[in-house]
Amino acid sequence: MTLQIALDAMGGDHGPEELVHGAVQAVQESDVGVTLLGDEQRIRTALKDYDWPSARIQVVHTSQVVAMEESPFEAVSRKRDSSIRVAFELHKQGKVDAVVSAGNSGATMAAAIKTLGRLDKIARPGIAGIFPTLKGPVVMMDVGANVDCRPHHLFQFAIMASAFSSMVFGIAKPRIGLLSIGEEGGKGNALVKKSHELLLNSNLNYIGNVEGRDTFQGDVDVIVCDGFVGNVSLKLSEGLAEAVLAMLREEISKTLKAKLGYLLARQAFHNFRERVDYAEYGGAPLLGFKGTGIICHGRSSALAIKNAIRVASELVRRNVNERIMQLLLESSPTAGVEQDDLSDLAAAKGPA
Amino acid sequence: MTLQIALDAMGGDHGPEELVHGAVQAVQESDVGVTLLGDEQRIRTALKDYDWPSARIQVVHTSQVVAMEESPFEAVSRKRDSSIRVAFELHKQGKVDAVVSAGNSGATMAAAIKTLGRLDKIARPGIAGIFPTLKGPVVMMDVGANVDCRPHHLFQFAIMASAFSSMVFGIAKPRIGLLSIGEEGGKGNALVKKSHELLLNSNLNYIGNVEGRDTFQGDVDVIVCDGFVGNVSLKLSEGLAEAVLAMLREEISKTLKAKLGYLLARQAFHNFRERVDYAEYGGAPLLGFKGTGIICHGRSSALAIKNAIRVASELVRRNVNERIMQLLLESSPTAGVEQDDLSDLAAAKGPA
Repeated sequence: MTLQIALDAMGGDHGPEELVHGAVQAVQESDVGVTLLGDEQRIRTALKDYDWPSARIQVVHTSQVVAMEESPFEAVSRKRDSSIRVAFELHKQGKVDAVVSAGNSGATMAAAIKTLGRLDKIARPGIAGIFPTLKGPVVMMDVGANVDCRPHHLFQFAIMASAFSSMVFGIAKPRIGLLSIGEEGGKGNALVKKSHELLLNSNLNYIGNVEGRDTFQGDVDVIVCDGFVGNVSLKLSEGLAEAVLAMLREEISKTLKAKLGYLLARQAFHNFRERVDYAEYGGAPLLGFKGTGIICHGRSSALAIKNAIRVASELVRRNVNERIMQLLLESSPTAGVEQDDLSDLAAAKGPA
Repeated sequence: MTLQIALDAMGGDHGPEELVHGAVQAVQESDVGVTLLGDEQRIRTALKDYDWPSARIQVVHTSQVVAMEESPFEAVSRKRDSSIRVAFELHKQGKVDAVVSAGNSGATMAAAIKTLGRLDKIARPGIAGIFPTLKGPVVMMDVGANVDCRPHHLFQFAIMASAFSSMVFGIAKPRIGLLSIGEEGGKGNALVKKSHELLLNSNLNYIGNVEGRDTFQGDVDVIVCDGFVGNVSLKLSEGLAEAVLAMLREEISKTLKAKLGYLLARQAFHNFRERVDYAEYGGAPLLGFKGTGIICHGRSSALAIKNAIRVASELVRRNVNERIMQLLLESSPTAGVEQDDLSDLAAAKGPA
């Protein structure tokens, strides 16, 4: 089965050209098809630069764009012909199998929920961030969709992120940690203490509280937290990694000897950068709605977009949503039956 | 005036020997005096290794220790002859001017509050973390004492951290940022949105929300957050910095060429490590109580202890507490008059 992935060509800081480049790479390197949504003329102009299996890229013209600073729910409701909204409409109609967007994270989330709705019994869809560690990748959820959470939200994040980790990364029983400020179960804020009880009394592979320090050790596969803490963690990590490299560069540039040393070790630095590059996974999967979506960083490169398209295909092929439903059934029956107020999703922030 | 600083010689992962070494360095390099509290025999044995101006190190024998895993308030109440409790008793009696501890953070906090009490009108004392940035240091508060906060707590953290930043780092009007997940004032969780209003309507130098990414840029002098988010940020930063260096080392060790390059650039790496070393500031000041205290990392080196003793002296000499009271008076008169329940300080976590 050839999957068709919609790409919001108007999202992202670099304009349609970079996104189109990523789409072309995706169809060149895999058997996926891509539907580009946005200003048809700009997209077609950008496409002229490349050779690609032409049947596998389609262009759908849309006349509106949701800007980064717009209020997500309001903008998605009002702008019926925006690229992000039309992308999810096509998804609902079964014309595409997933949506990839590097635009306004909140609007992507809002369009997904508004158009396709939440998975049954899921109280809050969320965004799963993928972090590199000393061993394999770790999935942190939520990284920005839900800023004020209740314990059963965190419990469901554990389920959704586990389903992703097992189906996409092939980990049979993902080890789940609860992000807190001490390893003992009694430590943490009120939300974490209650979430700890829920997780402890479930049949999930819950290993207990983990501290921020454990995030990058690779001894845990899933880290659960509310979207405020998760988004702060995501941004802090990006900022720190950049600052570390900037400081190292500064120190190295101070002497000729160090500069020479850097030249010799340059490949190692390059490999390191590849290893920690967010572009490797392309973006953050949006989990918990009746469809498949990936939210990419606003400044995504073509490489990141290509990888996001690949990860979106894997989410569909490996039936992550089915796995979520199955884990929900197997775990505590009380979790998340209630239907929450979704209004604060308007504050959703993702990697962008 | 020669200041006398109490050092809990039983706290820390490396035992009294490392702490004693730090105390000796402090008296050798400045005119400060140090009172070491703990097992007198072990302390005196450790002291034998060094020459130092003997009048400036005193030893006070204590028979009890609060362990890292003990419940802080309970342990401090029960263990009347514990090194940390006696240290603060001496502080109350005016026999020492400040306390430095690398032991149980919560117990240090509990002993400070129990013995000396909070500063007038301060609802919640907290722990200020000092982070290196691309420019100068940034002070983040709270980094672990108060896991569930209300807006006026964050408002007072802004005041206390500003007082520290201006008096110790000499910044006339510290720029205060509120840690959030978007730069617009409307973004964040419920706590952050309300805290934003308080800060905006004050005469503090509030520059608005900052994201985790901004932490290490050095464009802000004070970052305000609750103790849960702050502690996660602190631990995440430590973990990421270590992981980055470990990954770089791994990449460099893969080829002979890169190894040779590293040898040439080694001094630059060394300088970098010094620049980001938490030991530079020694520890995290405990602000908001009627006295002066520094909480050090459990694994503090002698160097970190020496620097913590120096920073403690500066807090006393520069009257940080007086400045806090002055800023409280000048800012909104409504802030923090109420007296909070302090029971959840039992969950206090610091750098240790």
